[in-house]
Amino acid sequence: MPNTDVISFSRGAPSLDIVDTEGLKAAAVAALEADPAGVTGYGTSVGYGPLREWIAAKHGVQTANVLITNGSMQADAFLFDELVKPDSPVIVERPTYDRTLLGLRNRRGELHPVRVQADGLDVDELEALLKGGVRPTLAHIIPNFQNPAGVSLSGDKRVRLLQLANEYDFTIFEDDPYYDIRFRGEQHPTMLEQDAENRVVYACSFSKTVCPGLRTGYLVGPAGLIKTIAEAATNTYIAPNMFAQATIYQFAASGALDRSIATVKDALEERVDQLAASLRAHLPGSEFVVPDGGYFLWVDLGEGVDCAKVAAAAADEGVQVVKGTDFVLDGGETCLRLAYSAVKADRIDEGVRRLARAVEATRA
Amino acid sequence: MPNTDVISFSRGAPSLDIVDTEGLKAAAVAALEADPAGVTGYGTSVGYGPLREWIAAKHGVQTANVLITNGSMQADAFLFDELVKPDSPVIVERPTYDRTLLGLRNRRGELHPVRVQADGLDVDELEALLKGGVRPTLAHIIPNFQNPAGVSLSGDKRVRLLQLANEYDFTIFEDDPYYDIRFRGEQHPTMLEQDAENRVVYACSFSKTVCPGLRTGYLVGPAGLIKTIAEAATNTYIAPNMFAQATIYQFAASGALDRSIATVKDALEERVDQLAASLRAHLPGSEFVVPDGGYFLWVDLGEGVDCAKVAAAAADEGVQVVKGTDFVLDGGETCLRLAYSAVKADRIDEGVRRLARAVEATRA
Repeated sequence: MPNTDVISFSRGAPSLDIVDTEGLKAAAVAALEADPAGVTGYGTSVGYGPLREWIAAKHGVQTANVLITNGSMQADAFLFDELVKPDSPVIVERPTYDRTLLGLRNRRGELHPVRVQADGLDVDELEALLKGGVRPTLAHIIPNFQNPAGVSLSGDKRVRLLQLANEYDFTIFEDDPYYDIRFRGEQHPTMLEQDAENRVVYACSFSKTVCPGLRTGYLVGPAGLIKTIAEAATNTYIAPNMFAQATIYQFAASGALDRSIATVKDALEERVDQLAASLRAHLPGSEFVVPDGGYFLWVDLGEGVDCAKVAAAAADEGVQVVKGTDFVLDGGETCLRLAYSAVKADRIDEGVRRLARAVEATRA
Repeated sequence: MPNTDVISFSRGAPSLDIVDTEGLKAAAVAALEADPAGVTGYGTSVGYGPLREWIAAKHGVQTANVLITNGSMQADAFLFDELVKPDSPVIVERPTYDRTLLGLRNRRGELHPVRVQADGLDVDELEALLKGGVRPTLAHIIPNFQNPAGVSLSGDKRVRLLQLANEYDFTIFEDDPYYDIRFRGEQHPTMLEQDAENRVVYACSFSKTVCPGLRTGYLVGPAGLIKTIAEAATNTYIAPNMFAQATIYQFAASGALDRSIATVKDALEERVDQLAASLRAHLPGSEFVVPDGGYFLWVDLGEGVDCAKVAAAAADEGVQVVKGTDFVLDGGETCLRLAYSAVKADRIDEGVRRLARAVEATRA
């Protein structure tokens, strides 16, 4: 009989205890008090003015370089609509976010997966592809706490990737929703801030620092491209949600955002340490890199494991995981993605015990 | 020298005095108190559950027939993406909403404009087109207080239009954002509620009854089509804005929505009566139908007028209007659209005086 008290390592979403709902109430009221016309009016497709300025200041760019969207996946969609035509060569990480793969495949891009190592994209493999004649339009890179691998791109590799983009004339899509939730280790500079030749389009989100339900993300990029995408956005929905954006702006301006980020980081660090300890204890043969931030741990269960069977058996045991094959065009059969963002620390060990039983059952 | 105290008849948006910002504050707080997990979580692409149920009950349909979107223009965009392929024949009203024309042209639909009369679409002209061999995929109809013409489709014509859709096998896109803001006259049944053969896809919005900044609209249609569009929406932005939707739900549940609609209707009726009186006084040769609801009055200034010149001269006089040519594929040169939603009654006469001076100047 399926376990009804389910523990979910499947969804990259925060548990409610690390969302500041009181702060959001105050921010919503403050937004309507400070700027009732701006909050209730249509606005324009580039986004709510004060939040746009706040984002520009955060990244050291002009407001003309910023476009706010209804979640960062909408930003991806606009960018892909603009740059990815049928048969456009696109570099993707292997493994990578399943929705990114789907978005690129739906636009019939020609995908070239490049392996992710413990320090991020294998830049040598990319360089060999480029030397072999592949001429990408775009390289999609999740530089921090990659989804699903949990690893980050090293500082040296960021520099080399930018050099390759300049040399081979492609755009780097730096997809960086986890930037602010590094809980240990050194923050590397973004490729955006090192970009001298307008090669980088940067995406981020407030889903991981405020909450997902306000559906607010953004793009930073060359002013001409931002203008083109702003026009497409006008024709799609006039403007992104003004009320949500103004609430986020007030949340940031009041200091609640910094407190929220601190809360999230503390909780995630505790969770990932527990997860790593439990995996070592209950699945001693498994291999993984312990993330320094973000939501996800990628675990390789080793030879002979079929992740689809494990995921099904795990569901029967009352623990949800996502099978590795969802994040690659081929391969990934022995891997799982474990999202620790939604599971409180005191439930993690029980979740891993259930997972270990499931692995055992599929081996039997 | 341009007049700096501008009166704008150009934008279809409400003035701030008819937006219940206090009610919105209370609704936002109530939303976060009642359902913190639902409001702050990702949600799913069909929309926030309680609001979806509220919409289904309002229209007497199942929740499976409802999809909530980030504004109703996003709903249009999803529907057009699904039904309008290059060279798909599409019936549009003449004149019609400029953004609808743009959305259809961008998808390279083959547009067949059909004249709008004082009682809505000329159904005889449509029937002649159909008998002549045109086989539309879709007919886009704004049945109430049409944008820009301000007129409504009669009850008889609604019945005939449905008959034609059944006979000639096309979808009616009933685009009805102004439904709730009829301030006089009899409400006709929607085509949606008379549809026995799944011919109608209905769109509406909370922009005119709550405010535009919450960017919330919706589609009602056949469950299969809604499911297909929900999948496209998931791949575009995961889910529409949960916070805005939950705020609207609480606004409706508390009774604030009904009060807001009453406020809006009272103000618009006063404004349109003043506008009609001022046009008769200062532009006695002009022709127009006084709307029974909605935001827009369409005025024909008569032979020899060039609306582009009038609009430019009006801007110099300190009044903004939209030229009629924006709302048709060709023609409309003697017409203007006047939006009275954003101009308080005591400023309307001055606005029309300025407009009359502009008309006079272009005739000289």
